[in-house]
Amino acid sequence: MPKMMRALCKVRPEPGFVMQQVPVPTIGSTDVLIRVERVGICGTDYHIYAWDRWAQERVRPPCIIGHEFMGYVEAVGDAVRAVRVGDRVCAEGHIADLTCFLCRTGQAHICERLKIIGVDRDGAFAEYIAMPEYNVWKLDPAIPDDVAAVFDPLGNAVHTVMAAGVSARSVAITGVGSIGLMAIPVARAAGAASVFAIDVNEARLSLAKRLGADRTFLASQPGLVEEIRSRTNGDGVDVLLEMSGSGAAIDSGLQMVRNGGTAALLGIPSDNVNLNLAERIIFKGLTVLGVNGRLMFETWYQTQALLKSGRIDLGPIITHTLPLADYQEAFELMHTGAAAKIVLVVGGHGH
Amino acid sequence: MPKMMRALCKVRPEPGFVMQQVPVPTIGSTDVLIRVERVGICGTDYHIYAWDRWAQERVRPPCIIGHEFMGYVEAVGDAVRAVRVGDRVCAEGHIADLTCFLCRTGQAHICERLKIIGVDRDGAFAEYIAMPEYNVWKLDPAIPDDVAAVFDPLGNAVHTVMAAGVSARSVAITGVGSIGLMAIPVARAAGAASVFAIDVNEARLSLAKRLGADRTFLASQPGLVEEIRSRTNGDGVDVLLEMSGSGAAIDSGLQMVRNGGTAALLGIPSDNVNLNLAERIIFKGLTVLGVNGRLMFETWYQTQALLKSGRIDLGPIITHTLPLADYQEAFELMHTGAAAKIVLVVGGHGH
Amino acid sequence: MPKMMRALCKVRPEPGFVMQQVPVPTIGSTDVLIRVERVGICGTDYHIYAWDRWAQERVRPPCIIGHEFMGYVEAVGDAVRAVRVGDRVCAEGHIADLTCFLCRTGQAHICERLKIIGVDRDGAFAEYIAMPEYNVWKLDPAIPDDVAAVFDPLGNAVHTVMAAGVSARSVAITGVGSIGLMAIPVARAAGAASVFAIDVNEARLSLAKRLGADRTFLASQPGLVEEIRSRTNGDGVDVLLEMSGSGAAIDSGLQMVRNGGTAALLGIPSDNVNLNLAERIIFKGLTVLGVNGRLMFETWYQTQALLKSGRIDLGPIITHTLPLADYQEAFELMHTGAAAKIVLVVGGHGH
Amino acid sequence: MPKMMRALCKVRPEPGFVMQQVPVPTIGSTDVLIRVERVGICGTDYHIYAWDRWAQERVRPPCIIGHEFMGYVEAVGDAVRAVRVGDRVCAEGHIADLTCFLCRTGQAHICERLKIIGVDRDGAFAEYIAMPEYNVWKLDPAIPDDVAAVFDPLGNAVHTVMAAGVSARSVAITGVGSIGLMAIPVARAAGAASVFAIDVNEARLSLAKRLGADRTFLASQPGLVEEIRSRTNGDGVDVLLEMSGSGAAIDSGLQMVRNGGTAALLGIPSDNVNLNLAERIIFKGLTVLGVNGRLMFETWYQTQALLKSGRIDLGPIITHTLPLADYQEAFELMHTGAAAKIVLVVGGHGH
Repeated sequence: MPKMMRALCKVRPEPGFVMQQVPVPTIGSTDVLIRVERVGICGTDYHIYAWDRWAQERVRPPCIIGHEFMGYVEAVGDAVRAVRVGDRVCAEGHIADLTCFLCRTGQAHICERLKIIGVDRDGAFAEYIAMPEYNVWKLDPAIPDDVAAVFDPLGNAVHTVMAAGVSARSVAITGVGSIGLMAIPVARAAGAASVFAIDVNEARLSLAKRLGADRTFLASQPGLVEEIRSRTNGDGVDVLLEMSGSGAAIDSGLQMVRNGGTAALLGIPSDNVNLNLAERIIFKGLTVLGVNGRLMFETWYQTQALLKSGRIDLGPIITHTLPLADYQEAFELMHTGAAAKIVLVVGGHGH
Repeated sequence: MPKMMRALCKVRPEPGFVMQQVPVPTIGSTDVLIRVERVGICGTDYHIYAWDRWAQERVRPPCIIGHEFMGYVEAVGDAVRAVRVGDRVCAEGHIADLTCFLCRTGQAHICERLKIIGVDRDGAFAEYIAMPEYNVWKLDPAIPDDVAAVFDPLGNAVHTVMAAGVSARSVAITGVGSIGLMAIPVARAAGAASVFAIDVNEARLSLAKRLGADRTFLASQPGLVEEIRSRTNGDGVDVLLEMSGSGAAIDSGLQMVRNGGTAALLGIPSDNVNLNLAERIIFKGLTVLGVNGRLMFETWYQTQALLKSGRIDLGPIITHTLPLADYQEAFELMHTGAAAKIVLVVGGHGH
Repeated sequence: MPKMMRALCKVRPEPGFVMQQVPVPTIGSTDVLIRVERVGICGTDYHIYAWDRWAQERVRPPCIIGHEFMGYVEAVGDAVRAVRVGDRVCAEGHIADLTCFLCRTGQAHICERLKIIGVDRDGAFAEYIAMPEYNVWKLDPAIPDDVAAVFDPLGNAVHTVMAAGVSARSVAITGVGSIGLMAIPVARAAGAASVFAIDVNEARLSLAKRLGADRTFLASQPGLVEEIRSRTNGDGVDVLLEMSGSGAAIDSGLQMVRNGGTAALLGIPSDNVNLNLAERIIFKGLTVLGVNGRLMFETWYQTQALLKSGRIDLGPIITHTLPLADYQEAFELMHTGAAAKIVLVVGGHGH
Repeated sequence: MPKMMRALCKVRPEPGFVMQQVPVPTIGSTDVLIRVERVGICGTDYHIYAWDRWAQERVRPPCIIGHEFMGYVEAVGDAVRAVRVGDRVCAEGHIADLTCFLCRTGQAHICERLKIIGVDRDGAFAEYIAMPEYNVWKLDPAIPDDVAAVFDPLGNAVHTVMAAGVSARSVAITGVGSIGLMAIPVARAAGAASVFAIDVNEARLSLAKRLGADRTFLASQPGLVEEIRSRTNGDGVDVLLEMSGSGAAIDSGLQMVRNGGTAALLGIPSDNVNLNLAERIIFKGLTVLGVNGRLMFETWYQTQALLKSGRIDLGPIITHTLPLADYQEAFELMHTGAAAKIVLVVGGHGH
């Protein structure tokens, strides 16, 4: 095993990344060392690249970035129980303390001491990454590398869809960025009776259509709430999946939901949102669910089951596959909005 | 409106039915009179035809039989609120008292004073039937007559599937009579990740395959429980839908379910069942659900939503459509097992 | 039966009420006429009395006000099924259409065509009131008249507590007006492990203590969120019952709830609320429930069960019982905040 | 630390136990060594003592028996995260593999590879026991030693009560052995509106009464099902907690539950049970829950919360506290039925 490796790093508190040689990480007794093959680029990575306000407050350079990845197990610690060298894996990037009340009651995804790889500790845009065995997910052979590399955001989509419960229900998705797009085939596979997609971007909406949305709407369309209601017997949709983080989308999305319906909020507003709680939530008897990360590991099993059912095709979403060395081009594609999901190939250099 | 009508009647406590002229029913202030167009034949109807032990204990001739039907509203009582003359409708055949604890808490389908049309009071194999407005379901134009005529058993399938919860789960169905067959496309449309169908009848299993079962198995296959477990990562299926009423199927079905899984029992055993409760239910931490009828009217809305999603094709199940006059032939087809679901055409005689 | 009756009326669009002689209401075939014995005064009644912005927009004089009451059945319509003359009753004051999707699926309390007695149609501060049989609740003899008169707000408290689910959980209640106060013994009887009450009013907090709150806090106390967290192992409470409608209370209440906890919102903000949805709901994985009215009639059975268990004593809450004629004094007591819940005695004048 | 310790052992496949000197156990890197202070005697221990059919099939001598205990941490392995030497602890006695589907989805209590201490591996009736850190529960100072020693069976009671959901509901408990007795104050503290206890033993029933049962009944009482129904408005109880394992109790218990109610089965029948599934479960729309062990660690937090609420007094259940040396007397007390729960004191001999 080499001592040094290539890694994409945030070196200083300023925009941009630098490809560097850094030491291969060491592992503790309950950890696993993974040779990374493919990584996915997330909006979060772009925030760190662009060094916006959120990134400045949260990220402490220098560190390796990236949290969506798949690869092969290269080494395991002494106390590792079930993961073996050579296993093809991806991993849950949220590292919980596993000892608190939340972790001990099936809520590790919202542990108050969560560390996120590529944000709070070294990430996956590198040749190797060390992970606790607890976080490692053994990949089913039926799942291709590109899909395996984006299990993390796909898991966000699955978590949101399954938390809301879409079986035999009508669903509106506000915001079809990459996770919103993934939520479309996920919702259909999970039993949604109908799926409406809403966004400000026509190109994204046409992708939404290809992915199985029954109807798509521009968020700016006049009378959109009434249109959605008229397509749902005048009641409104049973379920809102909010994936934009836009205050306006949250407000109009809540209006689209029928009385007694469910709204799952995954999109993260960058500012406070001003809401008429009485009309939007209380009088309607709504259930509003905050959704964060992925249930460890119920979401992962559900994601695997849905993928293996053959009903989810992420092909139209993974718009670009590039070598890691072309990361600049990748982040420019993110910036222009030309890409939905980009996968970078790390491995293949002598392995 | 005519005073008299044709009706298929159980006249005496003995096998067989008689087509008779009987008075058109009168309606009370909260009732609706429906001109029947199509009816479906249920196994229950065959029990009454054959006059078996259950029928002898439950049915009190003379009465009109049949409980699956669709038609048009001919007249409405003074206090009827929303149903109008001319509406195309079918109806919930379980008539609850609507005043007891169960009816007042969303459980009218298990009201202790339920009367079932065609069993406890006059049924639908006739030119007209009177129903409480509460029980009437207005049909969406997108739903064809034959499907509308079998909303009742389709609703049983939907109720069972939705009670168990199949979204992103693996499902085994034991017993693919007509409701078990319906449960296959229903489970798939409701989001099941995989569906295994098990029966003693190869012809039914091949129909199950056409309807979307991922795999089918003869109940007699040696090592079936292990086979099912091996196809579910060694765990067993998440969900059992028991639709045979066979004690042996219940016992082996419970063994197929994974620890912590759910078994929904719809099939009605004719005798006591001898069960190892410790091994089959308690140690496994199973959830076992008794399922009866259809939720009024959550199941009906779900059924409509699933049908309108375009994901359920009952074509292969409705194997025969015959005029009401050919009822003898229909019951013979039931007897030989050559038919899955038979629809009889009542109307079209001058209407 | 008399033709005319006394009734407390909103006669003109201006502050105040007028006691008038008005016709005794007539009943339809599915209705019940109730001779009113006792009524409770709600904050809503005070809004109408004071003729504030909400009242001006919603109420259309002339009308009889009041929606909390108990009495005896004086007459029943032809199609009434189970209610009998002489029955001791109270009633659900939200009159739903009973024919829409929501009403047909157990959600009549959020029917879009709800009419509320005393707000949208004639109310209960009168000698007689006509109600649909559907809305009438037969009182158990164990429940005293004063408690029966306030079943409606007590039902709000029970609905909120049961929707959130408090069994073996820690609970914070923000806002202990009369419903918030009722929620304290209700939560304890329903199994809350601990109850914290928070308000701006010290007198209310001391009442809260008498009613069984484990601890009470002034909303203005510095470091309150940390205090609540420190009393719950650093996690925060499992459940928030928001009963103030104050934006500040909602914001701090959401901070008091642990990650993955539940917040049930019953209090109605008069204005929009500005919320950090990311920090308060999304990252925390919270479940936020809008609560409105009472489940028909699950909440009513639960309320009855809790009352009959002997674990709820509303004595300290019903601070005043006055004759209807003293309504001016009653509304002044409301205004000064000297009263928690006032019951007015209507009957006893020759009946 | 001593090399050898006293331990109560099953030495040979025959009735009885032997007190022996055996080596103090060694611990692995993720394990904890606990100095045992107090242990509780379970019916399972008596089965092993008496060497009945179940014990002969399951237990492989020689081994140390016992699984209910509390004590202090004496040493911790290198990779232990949160447990510290000196911590006052008890422990979950079901040791799961923590790597399978069930363990990874919050269902470790029904892991297929569970090992139970004192049954499948060395137990707690000894001066020291080694446990995985995962299984260790740090005790709140408010919980006395005797209660801490019986957290395991108390957890069974809490798991059953919380799985069924008793808040504002009527509850019947069939079988008031020590866990059934514990379920009475647990159900009341968790919000049960009424609790009926049923058993064959009058002494146990009088204990049940002292513990808070509203009413108690001999199982042999003629017309018991009707009696229970008549005390629940003719409907039957909302919830059955079956804690006897008797086939007859299960059959009559299921009859006592109302349509649509819930039956949680904890008692383990020693033989198959012959049930009229149609009448007892299917037509009634019952939910039947198999309950096993304790949820790790939701049940433990709930148990702690209920104990700290001050609403559960186990005093009347812990009928005897004896030194470990008097184990023969203790098992004789078990045999005669004179004891409900016996706690043995292990420590205090030179520590």
